Amino acid sequence: MAEKKVEGAKVKLDNLVQQITPMDVDFAQWYTDVVRKAELVGYTSVKGCMVMKPAGFAIWELIRNQLDERFKETGVQNVYLPMFIPESLLQKEKDHVEGFAPEVAWVTHGGLAPLPERLCVRPTSETLFCDFYKNDIHSYRDLPRVYNQWCSVVRWEKETRPFLRSREFLWQEGHTAHATAQEAEERTIQMLNLYADFLEEVLAIPVIRGRKTEREKFAGAMSTYTIEALMHDGKALQSGTSHNFGDGFARAFDIKFADKDNTLKYVYQTSWGMTTRLIGAIIMVHGDNEGLVLPPKAAPVQVCVIPIRQQNPGILDKAYEIRDRLQKVCRVKVDDTDKTPGWKFAEAEMRGYPLRVEIGPKDLEAGKCVLCRRDTREKTEVSLDELESRVTELLDRIQKQMLERARAHRDSHTYCAVNMEELETIFAEKAGFVKAMWCGDAACEEQIKEKLSVTSRCIPFQQEHIADTCVCCGKPAKTMVYWGKAY
Amino acid sequence: MAEKKVEGAKVKLDNLVQQITPMDVDFAQWYTDVVRKAELVGYTSVKGCMVMKPAGFAIWELIRNQLDERFKETGVQNVYLPMFIPESLLQKEKDHVEGFAPEVAWVTHGGLAPLPERLCVRPTSETLFCDFYKNDIHSYRDLPRVYNQWCSVVRWEKETRPFLRSREFLWQEGHTAHATAQEAEERTIQMLNLYADFLEEVLAIPVIRGRKTEREKFAGAMSTYTIEALMHDGKALQSGTSHNFGDGFARAFDIKFADKDNTLKYVYQTSWGMTTRLIGAIIMVHGDNEGLVLPPKAAPVQVCVIPIRQQNPGILDKAYEIRDRLQKVCRVKVDDTDKTPGWKFAEAEMRGYPLRVEIGPKDLEAGKCVLCRRDTREKTEVSLDELESRVTELLDRIQKQMLERARAHRDSHTYCAVNMEELETIFAEKAGFVKAMWCGDAACEEQIKEKLSVTSRCIPFQQEHIADTCVCCGKPAKTMVYWGKAY
Repeated sequence: MAEKKVEGAKVKLDNLVQQITPMDVDFAQWYTDVVRKAELVGYTSVKGCMVMKPAGFAIWELIRNQLDERFKETGVQNVYLPMFIPESLLQKEKDHVEGFAPEVAWVTHGGLAPLPERLCVRPTSETLFCDFYKNDIHSYRDLPRVYNQWCSVVRWEKETRPFLRSREFLWQEGHTAHATAQEAEERTIQMLNLYADFLEEVLAIPVIRGRKTEREKFAGAMSTYTIEALMHDGKALQSGTSHNFGDGFARAFDIKFADKDNTLKYVYQTSWGMTTRLIGAIIMVHGDNEGLVLPPKAAPVQVCVIPIRQQNPGILDKAYEIRDRLQKVCRVKVDDTDKTPGWKFAEAEMRGYPLRVEIGPKDLEAGKCVLCRRDTREKTEVSLDELESRVTELLDRIQKQMLERARAHRDSHTYCAVNMEELETIFAEKAGFVKAMWCGDAACEEQIKEKLSVTSRCIPFQQEHIADTCVCCGKPAKTMVYWGKAY
Repeated sequence: MAEKKVEGAKVKLDNLVQQITPMDVDFAQWYTDVVRKAELVGYTSVKGCMVMKPAGFAIWELIRNQLDERFKETGVQNVYLPMFIPESLLQKEKDHVEGFAPEVAWVTHGGLAPLPERLCVRPTSETLFCDFYKNDIHSYRDLPRVYNQWCSVVRWEKETRPFLRSREFLWQEGHTAHATAQEAEERTIQMLNLYADFLEEVLAIPVIRGRKTEREKFAGAMSTYTIEALMHDGKALQSGTSHNFGDGFARAFDIKFADKDNTLKYVYQTSWGMTTRLIGAIIMVHGDNEGLVLPPKAAPVQVCVIPIRQQNPGILDKAYEIRDRLQKVCRVKVDDTDKTPGWKFAEAEMRGYPLRVEIGPKDLEAGKCVLCRRDTREKTEVSLDELESRVTELLDRIQKQMLERARAHRDSHTYCAVNMEELETIFAEKAGFVKAMWCGDAACEEQIKEKLSVTSRCIPFQQEHIADTCVCCGKPAKTMVYWGKAY
C-alpha cells in the first residue's frame, strides 16, 4: 500500500519535473521556470520590477549577513543616504552623468506640487556620497572614510529578467575616501579580493579576477576591477566590481582635507558593489534539470527531513527529534505536510535543499536514516547515533565539491585563440571564456565586439603568455584578455 | 602634570558641553544639537532627507536585528516588493488613496521618455501587497501569509526633523493575510504587543497600548492599534502601529481563496510598522544635557575604555587587555586617540555609551579600574579580577533602571481631567498625558482638538473609571482616552 502511494507520487513527481524546461532545450526558459517553481520571485503590476518571495529573500539575507560580517572585519561602517539625487548634483561629474542619465527614473512632483528641481532615484550614489563627504571631511584625522550602504537602486532597463536585470534591485555600495592614491588603490583591490573569496567560499562560484578595459570601465572611474564567473550555458556574468576614482570626483565636488603638513589636498575615492544578481549566478552555475541546487552556506534550509509513512506511529516524532538535534548544527526543517513522500522529494529538489534526510519505519527500527545529497543524488545510510557529525561532514563536502565541479566546468569551457579565425570558430562552435592576446588598442577591442558580438570580460591579474601578437591586428601584444558573451 | 592636563581638558569639556543647548532652555534645539554632536545624522543637498551616519545607523541595525529575530519567532517571513506603485493601483482603495495621495512623490519619466502611467514612490505598501497576494493566494493552504519587509518609504512632508519626520525614512512593514477575521485580529494585537515589549525590554521605553479613535486611524483600516510613549518634554510620540483591515482591501483588490468547504472567500488582512523614529524616541526619553544616553541593548558601543596617562608604560596595553576580555561579554571599544582624558570623557558622554571604564597608573598598580555609569554618573571601583561579572551586572542594572526612571517620569507626567476646565488648565500649565472620559462622539474629539491643540493618543487597553461623564459634553462616558500634544 505504501509502495503504491510512492508510485502514485512518482507520477506527480514527473509532472512537477515536466514543468521545468530542460536546460539543453532552452536555457533561458529553464532559468525562468526555476525562479518561478522554486518560488524565489513573484510578480506585481509594476513592470520590470520583481517581488522577492521568502525563499528568494532568505538567500539574499544570508548573502548580506555574511558579506556584511566580512566588510566589518576590514573596518567598513554602514550608513544610509537619501534615495533621491538632485539633477544638478548628478551632473557634476561629466563622464558619470553621461553614463547614467539615460537610464534613471525622474521624480518631478512631491505631493500635489511640481518640484523646483527634478530628482532622480539613485542608480548608484557616488554623487551623493561626494556631496556628503564634502562637508564631512575636514582633516587627515577624518580619513579614511570607509562607508557602505545596503539599499535598492533603480535603472530604467528595457529588457528585464529576475535577478539578472530589473528596474529596481537590491545591492550594497561601498564608498571610501582616502588621503593617498596608494591607499585608495589598495582598498579597491582589497574589496575585489574580498568579493572573489566570498563567491568561492560561500557561493561555491570560482571567478576570474581582473581589470576592465577602458571601454568597459565604470562611468567616471580611473580603473574598474571585476570578478567574472562562467554560467552553466557558457555565458559570463560580471559578479562584482570595484572602482578606483583617483581624485576625479574629489576635484568635481571639491572634497579637500587639511593634511598633516597643513596644506589642503583632494581626497582619493573608491566604490564597490555587489547585487541580488548573485542569486542569478547561484542558479545558473549550480542548477540542474530538477531545479535549484544551493551551496550549503547560501541555503536558508540546509537539511530537509522527510518522513516516510508518516501516519505510522513514531515516525513523525522521530522526524521532529532529528530536526531538534540537527538544529544545533545546521538550518533544518521537517516537511510534515500531507503530500506524498515522492512529491516532497521532488519539491525538496526543486527548492535546492543541499541535503535530504529520509526516515521511514524500517529506518526507525534499525536506528538509521538515509541522507541524500541534492548535488549528486548520492544516498548514504547512517546510524542515528552519528547523525550530527555525518550531516556536518556532508554539508562541508557538498560545499567543497560544488566549487570543484563549477571550477572544472569553467576550466573545460575556457579556450585559447591566437588569431581572428580561431576566435571566430570558437565562438561559433562553443560557449565559454576565450583567452586571447591584445595589443591594447581600443580599435581592436571594438572590432572583435562588432564582428563576434562578444565583449572583453577583463584583463586578468593572472596573466598568461599565449602568443606574441594581438589576436586581432597581429601587432605586438601587451596583455591577455578574457572574452565572452555576457549576461 | 597629568592633573594639569585633565584640568586643561576640563576647559575643553565645558566648551564641548556648552555647545549643547540645555533641554530646559529649548528642547527642540537640544534635540538638534544632540543628533548633530553625537554624529547620528549628516546632511546633503537633498532637502528634507537626512544621512544616517555610522553612529546612527548602528543603532538602527541593533533595532532591526533584534526586532527581526522576534518577528521570525512568530512565523514572520521577509520579502521585498518594488518601491514603485502605479497610480491606478494606489487608487483602488478609496480611503487609502485619500490619505496618502497628497504626500507622495511621483515618478513621471523613465530614462529619456515619459512614462505611460506615473508611479509613486511607496509611502507604504498595502496596495502592492494586495496586488501581489491577489495572484499568490489561491487556497486555504496558502494561508496565513505573514510577510514583512525592511525598506525605505517616502512621504513628502513640509516640515522635517531628523528621525521624527523626514521625506524618506527607514522602516519595516508587515502585511499579512488570513482565512478568518478572528485570526487577523489576533495577529494585529500580537504584533502590537510584540512592539510594546520590544520598546520596554530593549529600548527601555514604557508605552501605553491602545486603539486609535476613528478620526486618528490609518487610511483604509477597520481599526488601528498604537503604542504611545511620553518624551522628556511631556509630548507624546506614536511609536508603532498595527492595523486590522478586515476584508476591506481584499474586496477592493479581489483577493479570494478557496476555503476547505470549497467556497471562495475574501481574505482578512493586517499591517504593522515601526520606523527610524524609534531613534528619536530613545534620544528624547533618555537623553540629558550632556548628550545621548543609550540603553545597553540598543547601544552599538556598550563600554568605552578610557586610558588615563596613556603615555605611561603598561597603561595602553592594560586598556587593550580589558577590551579583549570584555569583548566576550559586551560591545566594547578603547578610546586610544591622542585627546586628553577629560575630552574623551565628555565625548563618551555625548555619544551615550552606557558604561565607561577608566584605567590609570594607580588603578594599574592596585589591580583595579573605575566603572562610571552614563545614566547616573555613579562611579564604582572594581577589582580587575571581577571585571566581566561586574560589567555584565552593571549593564543589566542600567537597562532596568533606565526603564524604571522613564516609567516614573511618564507616570508623574500623566494627569486626569473630569471636565473641560480641568483639561484646559492642565494643558495650559503642564506637559504630559491627560486621561479623560469620552462619550465616543467624534464631535467632542474634534472640539477638544480645536480648542486645546491636542490629539487623542489612544483608547488604552487598560481602562480606568475616572468619571461617569464625557470630559467635553458631559453626556454618559463610554471609554477613557489618553490626550496629549504629539510629535
